[in-house]
Amino acid sequence: MTSLNQIGQQAKTAAHKLALLDTSTKNHGLQSMANALIANQATILEANKRDLANANEMPKKFLDRLMLNEQRITDMANGLRSITQLSDPTAQIDRGWISDDGLQIIQRRVPLGVIGIIFEARPNVTADATGLTFKSGNAVILRGGKEALQTNLAIAKVLREALVQDNLPADAIQMVSDPSHESAQEMMNLTDYIDVLIPRGGRGLIQRVVKTATIPVIETGAGNCHVYIDKDADLKMATAITVNAKVQRPSVCNAAEKLLIHKNVAKQYLPTIAHALIDHSVQLRGDQTACEIVPEIAPATTEDWDTEYNDLIMAVKVVDDLDEAINHINNHSTHHSETIITNSLERGRQFQEQIDSACVYVNASTRFTDGGMFGFGAEIGISTQKLHARGPMGLHQLTTIKYEITGNGQVRK
Amino acid sequence: MTSLNQIGQQAKTAAHKLALLDTSTKNHGLQSMANALIANQATILEANKRDLANANEMPKKFLDRLMLNEQRITDMANGLRSITQLSDPTAQIDRGWISDDGLQIIQRRVPLGVIGIIFEARPNVTADATGLTFKSGNAVILRGGKEALQTNLAIAKVLREALVQDNLPADAIQMVSDPSHESAQEMMNLTDYIDVLIPRGGRGLIQRVVKTATIPVIETGAGNCHVYIDKDADLKMATAITVNAKVQRPSVCNAAEKLLIHKNVAKQYLPTIAHALIDHSVQLRGDQTACEIVPEIAPATTEDWDTEYNDLIMAVKVVDDLDEAINHINNHSTHHSETIITNSLERGRQFQEQIDSACVYVNASTRFTDGGMFGFGAEIGISTQKLHARGPMGLHQLTTIKYEITGNGQVRK
Repeated sequence: MTSLNQIGQQAKTAAHKLALLDTSTKNHGLQSMANALIANQATILEANKRDLANANEMPKKFLDRLMLNEQRITDMANGLRSITQLSDPTAQIDRGWISDDGLQIIQRRVPLGVIGIIFEARPNVTADATGLTFKSGNAVILRGGKEALQTNLAIAKVLREALVQDNLPADAIQMVSDPSHESAQEMMNLTDYIDVLIPRGGRGLIQRVVKTATIPVIETGAGNCHVYIDKDADLKMATAITVNAKVQRPSVCNAAEKLLIHKNVAKQYLPTIAHALIDHSVQLRGDQTACEIVPEIAPATTEDWDTEYNDLIMAVKVVDDLDEAINHINNHSTHHSETIITNSLERGRQFQEQIDSACVYVNASTRFTDGGMFGFGAEIGISTQKLHARGPMGLHQLTTIKYEITGNGQVRK
Repeated sequence: MTSLNQIGQQAKTAAHKLALLDTSTKNHGLQSMANALIANQATILEANKRDLANANEMPKKFLDRLMLNEQRITDMANGLRSITQLSDPTAQIDRGWISDDGLQIIQRRVPLGVIGIIFEARPNVTADATGLTFKSGNAVILRGGKEALQTNLAIAKVLREALVQDNLPADAIQMVSDPSHESAQEMMNLTDYIDVLIPRGGRGLIQRVVKTATIPVIETGAGNCHVYIDKDADLKMATAITVNAKVQRPSVCNAAEKLLIHKNVAKQYLPTIAHALIDHSVQLRGDQTACEIVPEIAPATTEDWDTEYNDLIMAVKVVDDLDEAINHINNHSTHHSETIITNSLERGRQFQEQIDSACVYVNASTRFTDGGMFGFGAEIGISTQKLHARGPMGLHQLTTIKYEITGNGQVRK
């Protein structure tokens, strides 16, 4: 088994080579990796069968995430191909100027270097993350869940062989094959080799990485998102957006978990909205006023306001005014996505200015917080922190800058 | 004594208010703070006298950094005034577009929130850092060295009172008054309240913060900078730049610590350059070849290549070619600033493309890596990491983005 230090060194060496590749060479590599996935799908599916057999005691939901089939492999290959269509951020010069001393200063985009990704059951992350890190000129060190190890290793092997065929560095992609807790710890402290660590998975995994890692982490994916229905809201729009934000895909981070409603319209609106949610099998919890208005709402506990359910559950709170709504959200949200439903321009502006979250909506569903929906083409996650990246992270967020300064003998006086 | 949790809460509350201030209000606050420093200089100097009396056993260099006088207080006030002239990054909308679903997406600049600054002896950091964090709409929690505690508290009190007079939140600036090791530890783990921590001081302090803090840190100021003299270099330019990069201000992070020289020109150039350095009292250390060419060069140890001297010392290495120079730099530098002296366009490009540092120069001194020299107006430090900020950090780097999305009832299909 290759040691993590060795993996780190190999990644760093590969990263220096990747940083110098032009866009068409990288696009060719992506096509070759896509072709190789299709050509080797039998091998990948066989490895996946072994993982599934070992995991047969796991819950059905888990097995569904772990399971691959021809369609899912085709989707992975198409994902790699679609990344060839995205523009290459490292081919970009952000800006340039001549300093007072006559130096030409160019600020250009360059890859971050080596990106670590720690993820859970879904083996498609291996191909998806590789596509984005490779296109942006980074080397990647992947560490998947132990239940998907055989599948992940098979996919990584296929991708690496495709790169070698293209005369590209295989170590652009490395999969950690040691599934132990110790190797995870070691990876989170690989300061000399990993430039940034992006955990992908449930809240437990992400919090563990944030609290343990001494290498820089980008925190993604925690979404305790709020819908606030203002006194000036349209009832039909409020109902449609609340239902969409809650039920269209309840397991994802941009689904709404909390409903706040202005007291002036609570009696009139809440029964309609609550029953629309209940019709979609949503279990409702609420504060005292909400429970009084709609008897089907069960009492919420203090913990509810801070909980991301990722399920068909929603907690409802009646607020006195917009200020109370804003304060509640700023105190309890994970700073991901929040929306206000209102016809008031002033109140919409106030909400957008004062809410301290990555994406702040007026009259739209929180479900639009997504690299694809934003037009970024693809995403590696949604950052809920403020440093480096905030909101949907596409290729651009996998890069940094470098200043290239050219003079003709300037010295500092 | 106010607890750190309480300080954190107060900072967060202040930050929400600061984020909403317009530029002219903030500029007025900066002017008021500048005026207050001048008006209260007697009080500040008295506090400084107490600190100096307590520290009278410290080295002279240390006492000089700690000492304030009327001129230094005037400089602090002028620093605050000059920040009013800089453009406010949070008044900026980066870009905006209409998504495929008809959502208007605006990407605007917003403050990071609460910035923690841990620094050492120089009390002027209290005013300088406050100017930058305040102008960019952030609250700041400062923690200075214990030897400067009375001075720092006096300055912070004056600045806070000036804000109150202007009807602005005093908690925009808070100084930690507990100088214990425990309070530093607590501050480095104040995840709920501090958005980013910027250590300012020597390598020891910065490394301690990087290795201890679980809140995001921006690593600044470590500079093992290199000058590489290529076979195609002009001797006169090479000498001038090497001397400037080494001796113009040896104690700072953008001063050069290492000299690499191509073997083809080493015999001809090195004696001239070495003697120019020796004439400026530089102590030289070198590899075997360098020692053979110039007898005044003492043998370097392995540690030399990784050491930042911050002093009139320089280590010299003769390299076989440009590739060896690039490899040596990428393996030993702190990724701050490096320069090549060459008349070859191709080799200059290769150096800039392949060196993995924040600022990569051709034919200019590394001493230009500085917010002022770059035209940023002021700087809070020079980042040697890749995440969020790289190179000189001005007001822009103290901000993040927020997406404000406006629709007319859009739901996701």
